Amino acid sequence: MKEKLWKNVLAVRQQSPLVHNITNYVVMNNTANALLAAGASPIMAHGHPEVANMVSIVNALVINIGTLDEYWVESMQLAAKQANALGKPWILDPVGAGATPYRNQVLEELLTYKPTVIRGNASEIMAVARVNATTKGVDSTNSSDEALKAATILASNLHCVVCVSGATDYIVSDQQYYTITNGNQLMARVTGMGCTATALIGAFCAVNKFNALEATLAAMALMGIAGEIAAAQSAGPGSLQLHFLDTLYNLTEAEFLGHLKLESYHASF
Amino acid sequence: MKEKLWKNVLAVRQQSPLVHNITNYVVMNNTANALLAAGASPIMAHGHPEVANMVSIVNALVINIGTLDEYWVESMQLAAKQANALGKPWILDPVGAGATPYRNQVLEELLTYKPTVIRGNASEIMAVARVNATTKGVDSTNSSDEALKAATILASNLHCVVCVSGATDYIVSDQQYYTITNGNQLMARVTGMGCTATALIGAFCAVNKFNALEATLAAMALMGIAGEIAAAQSAGPGSLQLHFLDTLYNLTEAEFLGHLKLESYHASF
Amino acid sequence: MKEKLWKNVLAVRQQSPLVHNITNYVVMNNTANALLAAGASPIMAHGHPEVANMVSIVNALVINIGTLDEYWVESMQLAAKQANALGKPWILDPVGAGATPYRNQVLEELLTYKPTVIRGNASEIMAVARVNATTKGVDSTNSSDEALKAATILASNLHCVVCVSGATDYIVSDQQYYTITNGNQLMARVTGMGCTATALIGAFCAVNKFNALEATLAAMALMGIAGEIAAAQSAGPGSLQLHFLDTLYNLTEAEFLGHLKLESYHASF
Repeated sequence: MKEKLWKNVLAVRQQSPLVHNITNYVVMNNTANALLAAGASPIMAHGHPEVANMVSIVNALVINIGTLDEYWVESMQLAAKQANALGKPWILDPVGAGATPYRNQVLEELLTYKPTVIRGNASEIMAVARVNATTKGVDSTNSSDEALKAATILASNLHCVVCVSGATDYIVSDQQYYTITNGNQLMARVTGMGCTATALIGAFCAVNKFNALEATLAAMALMGIAGEIAAAQSAGPGSLQLHFLDTLYNLTEAEFLGHLKLESYHASF
Repeated sequence: MKEKLWKNVLAVRQQSPLVHNITNYVVMNNTANALLAAGASPIMAHGHPEVANMVSIVNALVINIGTLDEYWVESMQLAAKQANALGKPWILDPVGAGATPYRNQVLEELLTYKPTVIRGNASEIMAVARVNATTKGVDSTNSSDEALKAATILASNLHCVVCVSGATDYIVSDQQYYTITNGNQLMARVTGMGCTATALIGAFCAVNKFNALEATLAAMALMGIAGEIAAAQSAGPGSLQLHFLDTLYNLTEAEFLGHLKLESYHASF
Repeated sequence: MKEKLWKNVLAVRQQSPLVHNITNYVVMNNTANALLAAGASPIMAHGHPEVANMVSIVNALVINIGTLDEYWVESMQLAAKQANALGKPWILDPVGAGATPYRNQVLEELLTYKPTVIRGNASEIMAVARVNATTKGVDSTNSSDEALKAATILASNLHCVVCVSGATDYIVSDQQYYTITNGNQLMARVTGMGCTATALIGAFCAVNKFNALEATLAAMALMGIAGEIAAAQSAGPGSLQLHFLDTLYNLTEAEFLGHLKLESYHASF
C-alpha cells in the first residue's frame, strides 16, 4: 500500500492535473503554491458566466466555504452541479461547519451534488454529519471517537470518502478506515494547512479517478510527511511555510516511505 | 507598566482569543498568520447572512476598509453594529482614509458604532479626525504634531483609543498618550504590516476587555519589537516576513522587556 | 541600452510611483510585496463608488482578469476608461484568455480602452490576438513563432507594447522586438510570477511615461534577473519567494548589467 501511495505522488508530478479551486480569500495563495509545488496546476475561477465552463476543462474541483457569501455560494453550486453532471471528482472542505446556521444551510445544498471526498477537522465533520442526518442521533461531543463515528455514517450515507484531519488523520470509506499519524503541531500555527490538504486531495483524485480512498490517503500522507520534515527544519511558523513548499517539491520516495505512519482498520460502527 | 504589557502577550498565548477579521484581500493571509503566530485564533467571515452571528461567537472584531466595496461595507456595518450592541471590542483600521470621498463617507458611518480602538498612519488618522469633526479646525498638514493633535481630539470625541503608527507610534487616550519607538524601517517594505498591527490590537483587546489602552500598548509593543528583532536577521523584505512570524511565535519575556522603548506623556492639547 | 534600463530601475526606487492594481485574489499579496520590494507603492481598490477617483491619483493602473466576475469586470472597465481618458499608462494581464467565452468577451471590451502594455504567456497573447482580429487569420497553434506573430499583429493594431513571457520573453512594439532570456524554470512553480511581472511593468511605465517599450524591457529584465539570482540560492519554490523579494530589494547595478541577456530584432512579419 505504501508504494502505491508513492505512485500517486509521482502521478501528480507527471500528469500535472488542472485543479479548479473555489476557495476562501485567506488561503488562495497558499493553495495555489502548494498545488504547484506538488506538481499540479491550480486554477481559481468563480464568476457565474464562466464557472461551469471552467469545470468542464479541469481534472478536479475543490470547494472550500471559508469566506462564503451569496455570490460565492451560487458559484459553488454551479460548479458542484457541473462536476457531478460530468462525473468529475470534487472535494468539499466544510470550513466552519456548525458555526452559523448559514453555513449549515449551504452545506446541506452542496451535499446534494455528492462530493467525492469531504475533509475537515473533527468538529466540522461532526457538524456536516448532523446536517446530513439530524435525526440519526450523531452526538455533538467532539471526541475523536465521535468524529470517527460521524465520518463513518457520513461516508456510508453519501457514498464518499471522509477525512477527519488532526493529530491523527482518519480517512474513512464505507467499510474501512485508515489512520495517518504524520505531521507536526506547528502546522496548526500556519493558516490554511487544512485547506491545502483539501486542495492536494483534489490533485490526487484528478490522477486517480477510480480510487478516491487511495488518492485521499496519498494526499494526506504527502501533507503530513512534508509538514513533519519541514517542521524539523523550522524555527517557527514563518519558516515552516517556506520549508513546507520546498519539501513538497523535493520529497523523495525514500523520505516518503521512511516517514509514513499508516494503519488500516475495519470500521466497527 | 512594561511587565503588565508582557502579561498581555502571555494572555493572548494562553487564552487564544477568537478574532473576527473583516479585512482587505491583500493582507488576509498575513493577518491570519500573524494572529496564529501570536497565539490567537483568526476567523474571516463577511457574508451578510452570517456576519452578525459570527460576531456573537468571537472575542473581538477587526474592521479594515482597504479593499472596500458596497457589499463589504454593508458587512462592516452589520458587524460593527453587532459588536457595539454586544459590548464587544472592535478595532477600526481606516486604510486610505481621505483618498476618496467614498472612504470618508464609509468611515463616517462606521464611527457611529463607536470603535474601541482606531489605528492608522498619520495621514489616515488626520483624515478620520476631519471626517469626525470637519468644523473643528483640525489641520490637514501631515506633521506628526498635527497627527497627535488629531488623535487626541478623536480619542476625546469618540471615547476611544487612537493609535498613530509610524517610526514613532503614538497611542492616545482621552487624557494621556504613550510613544513606542521600536520597529525598523524595513517593515514598511512588507505589505500589510499596519493591518497586522490592527489585528494584533484586536487579539489584545479580546483578552483585556476593560483596558483598551493597555491592550493597544501591548500589541504595538509586540509588533515593533518582533519587527525589530526580525529585521536584524533579514536580508530584505522577503526574509523579514519569515522572521517576523517566527519571532512573534518565539518572543521571550527577556527579549520583550529588553527591547521595549515606551514613554508616557500627559496630553497637552 | 542596458544602462538605460538600469536607470529605470533606479527611477522606480527613487520616485516610488503609486501603482493601482485591480488584480486577482490569488496574487494580491505577492503583487503588493513585489512592488514594495522594487520601490513602488501599491494600491488595491475596486469599489465602483471610488475606482475612477483612485485612478485619478495614481501614476499607473494594472488590470489582471484572473478571478474576474461581473462586479470586478465593471471595476476594470471603469478604471481602464478613466486611465484612457486621463492619458495614464495602464497594463493588461489577460490571465486565462481563451479558456472561456466570458474571458474573451471581457477582453474585447477592455481592449477598447487601449492598454499601454499587454503581458501574457504565449497562449494568452495568441488568444487576445484572436479576440482582437478574428478575421485576420492568426493561427491557434502555440509555438513561440506563432505567439511572436500574434504579438506583433496585436502591437500594430492596438499601438501598444506586447510582452509574451516564457523561457524567452518577447517584448514587441510596432516595428521591432526584443528578447530577454533571463529567469529560471523554478519561477513557474511559484504562483503569480507572471502577475508580478505585469505589476512591475506598471511601476516602470509610471516613471517612464513616454517610452513604454523601454519601461517594459526594464521591468522584464528586473523580473528575470531577480528570479535567476534568487533561484540560485533556493532549495525549492518556498525559498524562491523569499529570495526573490530580497533580491528585488537589494539588486545592484553590477548584478543587473552582469546578468542581463537582451537581444534586439527588427520585426519581420
